[in-house]
Amino acid sequence: MAAVTVAATQFACSPIAAENVARAESLVRAAADRGAQIIQLQELFETPYFCKDQRADLFDLARPAEGHPTLARMQELARELEVVLPVSFFEAANNAYYNSLAVIDADGDILGLYRKSHIPDGVGYQEKFYFNPGDTGFRVWDTAYARIGCGICWDQWFPECARSMALMGAEILFYPTAIGSEPNDPDYSSADHWQRAMQGHAACNMVPVVASNRIGREDGSTCSLTFYGRSFIAGPRGEILTEAGDQEAVLTAEFDFETLRRQRAGWGLFRDRRPDLYTVMMTLDGQNWTE
Amino acid sequence: MAAVTVAATQFACSPIAAENVARAESLVRAAADRGAQIIQLQELFETPYFCKDQRADLFDLARPAEGHPTLARMQELARELEVVLPVSFFEAANNAYYNSLAVIDADGDILGLYRKSHIPDGVGYQEKFYFNPGDTGFRVWDTAYARIGCGICWDQWFPECARSMALMGAEILFYPTAIGSEPNDPDYSSADHWQRAMQGHAACNMVPVVASNRIGREDGSTCSLTFYGRSFIAGPRGEILTEAGDQEAVLTAEFDFETLRRQRAGWGLFRDRRPDLYTVMMTLDGQNWTE
Repeated sequence: MAAVTVAATQFACSPIAAENVARAESLVRAAADRGAQIIQLQELFETPYFCKDQRADLFDLARPAEGHPTLARMQELARELEVVLPVSFFEAANNAYYNSLAVIDADGDILGLYRKSHIPDGVGYQEKFYFNPGDTGFRVWDTAYARIGCGICWDQWFPECARSMALMGAEILFYPTAIGSEPNDPDYSSADHWQRAMQGHAACNMVPVVASNRIGREDGSTCSLTFYGRSFIAGPRGEILTEAGDQEAVLTAEFDFETLRRQRAGWGLFRDRRPDLYTVMMTLDGQNWTE
Repeated sequence: MAAVTVAATQFACSPIAAENVARAESLVRAAADRGAQIIQLQELFETPYFCKDQRADLFDLARPAEGHPTLARMQELARELEVVLPVSFFEAANNAYYNSLAVIDADGDILGLYRKSHIPDGVGYQEKFYFNPGDTGFRVWDTAYARIGCGICWDQWFPECARSMALMGAEILFYPTAIGSEPNDPDYSSADHWQRAMQGHAACNMVPVVASNRIGREDGSTCSLTFYGRSFIAGPRGEILTEAGDQEAVLTAEFDFETLRRQRAGWGLFRDRRPDLYTVMMTLDGQNWTE
């Protein structure tokens, strides 16, 4: 297979959903113009990041995947441009609510859903109030251009998520994100920490990693957040290939997945694993139930 | 508890074991002079890195842990300087041979052995010829100054190893190493890739990582290797705090493990894990036996 071009985008979300969807579409078009075939939009891009506060009325932002108007529009866009779009959305599913992602293939078909597995909770990031922990497990998707794995934001901190997707044959990992300032620690930026965690996934699994974050200041009822952007694409040794600052951006990089597959096999990391020794990973507290 | 100072050392190994042990001792003394309380020596420092070639006669380099003269000398040194020494050695155990590490506490007692779990194999690094895959599993050690986890070289590429030790309460991770040039790919250096993998472990587990590599050119029967050094100490967000080049070095850094424990709890990565979704990690090929 020839080389595949992938993209990460970032923009500031306005309070008006229609504006955000239009902005997302224009960035997808800009990425496609630059040859991108798989394009990652940021997490929950239809709205401001509503998890700043615990507000029951904001559950109204959730929609079922079936008949979701933004997903339908992104399906049209994917079909027109022949691009793969992993699209983040707030999913209502009866009494359950998920931080979900629909993978739209280059023919516009939805290949399926992934629901965010790791749910954060902290000042400014009240996600445990809104989202059930995802029940889909980690998934990979045979798209028109590559087998891709997608995690969502906080998932990106967990080596288990990246490793699982790589074990299932993901050739590249995508992470839509919403991360920025810490209201309780205004002088601290997690941006470098955040990048290094994912560079580590790329390095340890020898697959590229694409992260798309939002930018801009957003004011909630109880706090304000400034999202730091820093969207990036890392190569299969964890090297940053391209990186945004805190301005609107479209980043692209090209990969030959056949070459990367041979490189991965030759380095031996997936040959020398020891699942017989990994049972402690199935615990939360390090107490090994097999002992 | 007050802050703890840790050290990584690196030096070039000569063909004469007594010289290497003396050099190791002098670097431990130099580190202790700078206040270091836990000091990491490089992998298999008693000899040149013999795994360059497949030679049956080199099994004679292995010794049982019991009565091992270098371990005994390092026990004396640890007791004298009141330092913790995780000491790498080639272990003979009846018909089994291991790439092992004895953790010597600050009173000179050996707390136990860890045997390298992940065994590499490639041109210049013929470890599967010499070493049984370790059977101890990952271990942590309550030393005089901290609960430490130790992996050995190739282990440092595996997120499972780092995560397991962190889950068992390791406050800091140590990795003795022997890594350098690739005879089949003379223009390539894995040094950056190698560092990023471990920076990722530090970032994802929010524990410091100490890596000690050897330096110098060594000629084997079938190939030569040039070890790149680049020993380093990374902080709990994956940041490189201090790093060597390709010259002899003693690196130190100081950590307050109580502060790091609170930082780790506050960030939530160990709260939000999902072992129910990690079963695929227990496979080699991503086929989930629970489905």
